[in-house]
Amino acid sequence: MGETILLPARRGKAVRMKRDARIHVINLHGQQVVDTWALNADDPDEVMSMEHTRSCLDKLSPTAGDSLFTNRRRPILLLEADTSPGVHDTLLSACDEDRYRLLGFKGKHGSCTENFHTALAALDMRVARIPSPWNMFENVLIGPDRGLAISPPVSRPGDTVTLRALMNLVVVFSACPMDIAPTNGLDRTPRDVQLRLE
Amino acid sequence: MGETILLPARRGKAVRMKRDARIHVINLHGQQVVDTWALNADDPDEVMSMEHTRSCLDKLSPTAGDSLFTNRRRPILLLEADTSPGVHDTLLSACDEDRYRLLGFKGKHGSCTENFHTALAALDMRVARIPSPWNMFENVLIGPDRGLAISPPVSRPGDTVTLRALMNLVVVFSACPMDIAPTNGLDRTPRDVQLRLE
Repeated sequence: MGETILLPARRGKAVRMKRDARIHVINLHGQQVVDTWALNADDPDEVMSMEHTRSCLDKLSPTAGDSLFTNRRRPILLLEADTSPGVHDTLLSACDEDRYRLLGFKGKHGSCTENFHTALAALDMRVARIPSPWNMFENVLIGPDRGLAISPPVSRPGDTVTLRALMNLVVVFSACPMDIAPTNGLDRTPRDVQLRLE
Repeated sequence: MGETILLPARRGKAVRMKRDARIHVINLHGQQVVDTWALNADDPDEVMSMEHTRSCLDKLSPTAGDSLFTNRRRPILLLEADTSPGVHDTLLSACDEDRYRLLGFKGKHGSCTENFHTALAALDMRVARIPSPWNMFENVLIGPDRGLAISPPVSRPGDTVTLRALMNLVVVFSACPMDIAPTNGLDRTPRDVQLRLE
């Protein structure tokens, strides 16, 4: 049951969810990172915040059963279930044009930041400053010297994250267009993701 | 030479800095955490961002010689010198009323979030959503399970962080009012900090 939505490789999608609705994020090919944001539907100044989530949970990253929190320390999404190994990132910013330029790419490159703004615009919403994303399936290693290294995801085809809305909200997903760093696997090929809204 | 500014315990202060100006943050008593933000003076939608700083540096936390970056991946502050052991936090949100309420405090409690907004208002500036702070001198331990624990600072009386402005900016400091967790040392007593503007 429910509505199936394709999140095409390199693109974003904003979805309205009523409180208690569920959405399943299905990593069809296994190694696609999905940058994720959530906003209070009634007040886009209240947003899911990685720094508040870390502070509220006293952990670097939420795991199954944990909530994610807004900048007002209210739970906004419940990470209800996760069939993946549970490796997701809360540390890195969404990619943007400047990230690709700094990596040496010439010309226009799609990005999670652009996807965020475009997806919200499709719902007639606008947020000037992009909140810190929850990078589902992104595998960021922390070295003994506290260096950070992006490694290929450890998730597998069909791995599914189930989120429950804890308020009326807008959730935004971006199938990360990174094709230079191994964010989306060693083949550096962004792929489709499936969303299923219950 | 230069102007000496007292940052009183539990309070905040916003300071305008021209490009290339320096400010020294002197931890008079040794264990006072100083939440720090920076904004482009000409466009408060461009702010120092911990997630962009981590992404640009590929490390959890800047160390002496590193720049801190904005949400447009431009360097905004140079961490020019640091006589402390170099332990600063980029992970946790600024404290706020809700943080104290969740810790069991009844009534009104000052917070870094309130200090941020009040300090900016004194310069006729307003930022709706507080950016992620750079928590100077805050000692957050990461456990093997990726749990986070606030420990007393390892900085000592007189330890000084020197910052150089890399654009015309407004920098905001808050002498964190935390007196429940050991953020500001085991005696849980917020104390004064000295700022010296060059």
